[in-house]
Amino acid sequence: MVWWKASSVGHDINPDLASERASPSFSVETLINIVDGGVEVTRLRRSVVSEINKDPVFSREYLYFKTPSERYESAVRNTFHLKNKIKSLGWDEDGPEIEYVYRALGGEVGLNIHKVFIKTLSTLGTDEQIAKWLPLASNYQIIGTYAQTELGHGTYLRGLETTATFDPTTQEFIIDTPQITATKWWPGDLGKTCTHAVVLAQLHTKGKAHGMHPFIVQVRSLRDHTPLPGITVGDIGPKMAFEHIDNGYLMMRSIRIPKENMLSRYCEVLPDGSYIKRGSDKINYFTMIHVRVSLLRGEVLESLMKACTISIRYSAVRRQSELKPGDREPKILDYQTQQQKLFPLLASCYAIVFTVKHVANVYNDVYKEIRMDNFNSLPQLHALTAGMKAFATEVCSGGVEVCRRACGGHGYSLYSGLPTLYTKVIASCTYEGENTVLYLQTARFLVKCFAGAQSGKPVPPDVSYLSSPLSSGCQATTHSDFRNPEVYLKAFEHRVYRLVASAATKIESLVLSGVEPYMAWNNNSVELVKASMAHIHYLTVKVFISSLNSLSNQPEIKTVLKRLCDLYALHGIFTSAGDFLQHGYLSGKQLDMVTTAYLGLLAEIRKDAVLLVDAFDYTDYELLSALGSYDGNVYHNLLEWARKNPESKKVSPVYENYLKPYLQSNQSKL
Amino acid sequence: MVWWKASSVGHDINPDLASERASPSFSVETLINIVDGGVEVTRLRRSVVSEINKDPVFSREYLYFKTPSERYESAVRNTFHLKNKIKSLGWDEDGPEIEYVYRALGGEVGLNIHKVFIKTLSTLGTDEQIAKWLPLASNYQIIGTYAQTELGHGTYLRGLETTATFDPTTQEFIIDTPQITATKWWPGDLGKTCTHAVVLAQLHTKGKAHGMHPFIVQVRSLRDHTPLPGITVGDIGPKMAFEHIDNGYLMMRSIRIPKENMLSRYCEVLPDGSYIKRGSDKINYFTMIHVRVSLLRGEVLESLMKACTISIRYSAVRRQSELKPGDREPKILDYQTQQQKLFPLLASCYAIVFTVKHVANVYNDVYKEIRMDNFNSLPQLHALTAGMKAFATEVCSGGVEVCRRACGGHGYSLYSGLPTLYTKVIASCTYEGENTVLYLQTARFLVKCFAGAQSGKPVPPDVSYLSSPLSSGCQATTHSDFRNPEVYLKAFEHRVYRLVASAATKIESLVLSGVEPYMAWNNNSVELVKASMAHIHYLTVKVFISSLNSLSNQPEIKTVLKRLCDLYALHGIFTSAGDFLQHGYLSGKQLDMVTTAYLGLLAEIRKDAVLLVDAFDYTDYELLSALGSYDGNVYHNLLEWARKNPESKKVSPVYENYLKPYLQSNQSKL
Repeated sequence: MVWWKASSVGHDINPDLASERASPSFSVETLINIVDGGVEVTRLRRSVVSEINKDPVFSREYLYFKTPSERYESAVRNTFHLKNKIKSLGWDEDGPEIEYVYRALGGEVGLNIHKVFIKTLSTLGTDEQIAKWLPLASNYQIIGTYAQTELGHGTYLRGLETTATFDPTTQEFIIDTPQITATKWWPGDLGKTCTHAVVLAQLHTKGKAHGMHPFIVQVRSLRDHTPLPGITVGDIGPKMAFEHIDNGYLMMRSIRIPKENMLSRYCEVLPDGSYIKRGSDKINYFTMIHVRVSLLRGEVLESLMKACTISIRYSAVRRQSELKPGDREPKILDYQTQQQKLFPLLASCYAIVFTVKHVANVYNDVYKEIRMDNFNSLPQLHALTAGMKAFATEVCSGGVEVCRRACGGHGYSLYSGLPTLYTKVIASCTYEGENTVLYLQTARFLVKCFAGAQSGKPVPPDVSYLSSPLSSGCQATTHSDFRNPEVYLKAFEHRVYRLVASAATKIESLVLSGVEPYMAWNNNSVELVKASMAHIHYLTVKVFISSLNSLSNQPEIKTVLKRLCDLYALHGIFTSAGDFLQHGYLSGKQLDMVTTAYLGLLAEIRKDAVLLVDAFDYTDYELLSALGSYDGNVYHNLLEWARKNPESKKVSPVYENYLKPYLQSNQSKL
Repeated sequence: MVWWKASSVGHDINPDLASERASPSFSVETLINIVDGGVEVTRLRRSVVSEINKDPVFSREYLYFKTPSERYESAVRNTFHLKNKIKSLGWDEDGPEIEYVYRALGGEVGLNIHKVFIKTLSTLGTDEQIAKWLPLASNYQIIGTYAQTELGHGTYLRGLETTATFDPTTQEFIIDTPQITATKWWPGDLGKTCTHAVVLAQLHTKGKAHGMHPFIVQVRSLRDHTPLPGITVGDIGPKMAFEHIDNGYLMMRSIRIPKENMLSRYCEVLPDGSYIKRGSDKINYFTMIHVRVSLLRGEVLESLMKACTISIRYSAVRRQSELKPGDREPKILDYQTQQQKLFPLLASCYAIVFTVKHVANVYNDVYKEIRMDNFNSLPQLHALTAGMKAFATEVCSGGVEVCRRACGGHGYSLYSGLPTLYTKVIASCTYEGENTVLYLQTARFLVKCFAGAQSGKPVPPDVSYLSSPLSSGCQATTHSDFRNPEVYLKAFEHRVYRLVASAATKIESLVLSGVEPYMAWNNNSVELVKASMAHIHYLTVKVFISSLNSLSNQPEIKTVLKRLCDLYALHGIFTSAGDFLQHGYLSGKQLDMVTTAYLGLLAEIRKDAVLLVDAFDYTDYELLSALGSYDGNVYHNLLEWARKNPESKKVSPVYENYLKPYLQSNQSKL
């Protein structure tokens, strides 16, 4: 088997993996279509992945051996090659194919922030600005980045320190990073690539500050790519992953740019320095939401789906220790402890697949409303996407690491594919809004809704539980009662209600006792974060259940996904038992039943586990994992890969310089 | 400030950090001595670190920029330079200085498994074997490794497949890796360095198998370092960390070695092929325990202590968002959510500092007994060290990652020092025994002790709770009651008792109902792991409390450490609340009190937090972190480091090859 080929079909399948696929209880192909969102989607995705895979320029063969510089170069090469390929294949640059291209290449593409530059220009520029800059950017005659985050300032945008001061005598803005903490830091494509940047800066005109605005600033010469006078620009250096991206820093010392370089669709500075705001800039807010929605599937969920594929296939091949005395070493997937690591994550993949679809639907509905100038649902959408971003990035990045460790020593080798998945996905907990900050934003929405519900106001559908009468306790009497979705959904509802109510009540009573509101909020923020998590957790269970209902014409698949839904919910109760017990909603005995039902499900899911990851339909080319290949020939892959190590063919100076003098001294003794 | 210097003392301290140190409530220096284990230890440690730091050969300046090959080379260079330095300074190769050398160099030293080779030889070799091989190895005239783990086999040693078959006609052993899964895989120093290996192989003689035995096999020529005939050897390739170590693979095709190459202190093959065992080989077992004990402090705990130092100092300097409306952005350390991430980890450092001392004491006591051929305490020591290894590696590696994420975007930069700490320490969850396997070994001890206690037998001191009468419920009536160590220790005792009893009872009743014991065990293994964790958790609380009692002559320090002890325990209850509620030991109301006490402690510890990490006494040279330097000039450090990036001085071919043609097309438009 040549491990980096698209698929190993046609080669011998490891019998330990073949046996897992021998008698499926459901059609894997149908489940693939469900995960994708339709037969047509599957067809398109496969054709795109196959096009990419068969193109030798896109070879991923030596990816794990490359230095950061080599990674950067090949990502840029991929970008330009892709541009030509898209044209020659007649794909649309904004078409559905592009998502699958990224999937196939594992994101190993450069100039991504150049696209953000174009998007920002198109959204925030006037028609004249778009007419001037867009063709240049689209043809790479200029390359842009988006420079917002600063060395001393991240998620809190009001704290940014870069200034843009209008000088009416010359009709210019003076852009300045007044101190070290104002240095722009992190923008992708800035370190070595871009010529221009949209710089976010505090606008000052006529002695007044007007908050953050976007300005186009040229940073490098178009003639020879050297930094322009007054500009200090460079690469911020090595990171935990994303070696292929040249994240950069940028200092600007009194850089003068023409007045026309302020992106002015929603606000403008007149020649005399007066400031005018026009229209609503709530749409900017919406852009941020859009980014969060789209990264969930593309970056975050994909990582966990791949990690589950790799670790579950490997666990069906790896044999270790003794279970039944005298028997052959069992597959490690037969150990309850291994099942308990991997199956709840498998279930989480499906829960998040369905929830991401749900979030996308809500997003599209609200988008339609907003285009009719109805912003009523924006707070709910914001709370949903902020909380879901935090929840999904934590479940997925934590989960990838559990998968990696579940592969033992081999999970520590880059060949497993798992370290790279982890070091990349973990960044998503911080970028596009730090998770704790996001959870607290969702919490603010929940507390507000709770207060509304207390005073009899209607609440948005996602938090309808806040105005329903609270049931006093769970009615389950046997462990099989806990396989009833109504039973566990009610438990999740009760839990989140209690957590929201408790935090809101504590804050209220502190404020009534004279504590300043900001202090009351801060002193309850640990519990507010908990309430937000519980809210999203509840939503994912709810969406999973309702997604099952749409599968009535696929009874076999419904049966197997129902098991995963049960597992997802019961694992949640098992691991956060305190929340369910504290107010007596569950009794200790009922928690015992939950435990029995939960552990019993692990054994039930065991037989379908490999098929359930096969349904994610990753090719070997995409997985790039010696442990996760479709044919399961893991040891062969590991050894072949080690022998291909280009490093091993180089002569290390270590032998000549350090070892030889010792080894050759006094050899007579041997 | 030049960031990689040993200490920034003498430079300007960031006022935000200076203010944290302005009015200490205790002597940091005294606490440093307590953590070290005495004034003399502190003195010695500092003098060693200072010697290493001032030696230019040991410069760590460009560590984060180095390729794996460069890391390997400098680790080997360090090793040989260190050998000479130790000699010239008159240190003992096995003396206490060596631990501090490793600490100072962050483990960036090569040929570590060569030392294991020497240790194995000295322990398992006969006097003649030692006389022959030890001088060669000590003078690096040969370089050895220890080859145990195989491609298909890890923690379960009985599964190893490499064979050593005795051939009486030639008085040789034939060493063979009969199939791909038998390939030796992972040994350090094997990939590019060693000439010899102690190979662990299944001994076959006279048609009978005798289990694993150690054999000295030469793998590379002493003349030119090429692999010997029949040997295939190489580097296993890139890993998540440990780039400086050449982990390797080794295949042996019917390699013949003289009979004298079997290490024969405890067993021997006679010329006619008869197999003789002599003495007890329990001592081997003890070696494994020794390794686990020593890695706890050196590799595992140090990582969390460094990560806490970096993240807490940074959190006292980083300002973000708005707390009180209109005020300056607050230090992020003032947010409850940030405190809740970092302070329980700070408390865990101290809990583990004390527990590691305790484990070392137990180890030394048992060692004395064993030297008098009394092996009675070995099972208890094994259970303690196996469980503690699993517990500490999980707390510390998980904790390092929490610290890293608590530093936001900058925690993702290698300059923070945190990614490197994480990717290294996480390996400890797998090496020297996979944690789940270790927890289950401890569980077997607990279940056995439980059965003993039920039938009235005496139990070892660590599990005395199994034979004490169980109190029916917690007596606390206010949140301040939970600041009483007796109160929370009892809660931990009750929790572990319940978990052990529950798992043991379930297994017993399954077996009584006819289920095979191995199956009953496997079906309860999730709960058995939980019980083991709870047991070690309980021990750490108990040891922390008793360590406080020895501080009566240091009342200020006792006060501040008592707060950490309370926090450590209450955080444990808060995060595993289900275990304490399920059987009614705590009521829901009492859990509310725990929460109040726990959150209140965060605010109390806030003022001492920086001093408590200063007491770990890491120099900037050791931390190698732009965020964690003693002077707190984090932004200056980050920027200076970025500008030093050797990569940024190289001309990337990307501009000429890819960007220039586009950027220079049709420039008339600009």
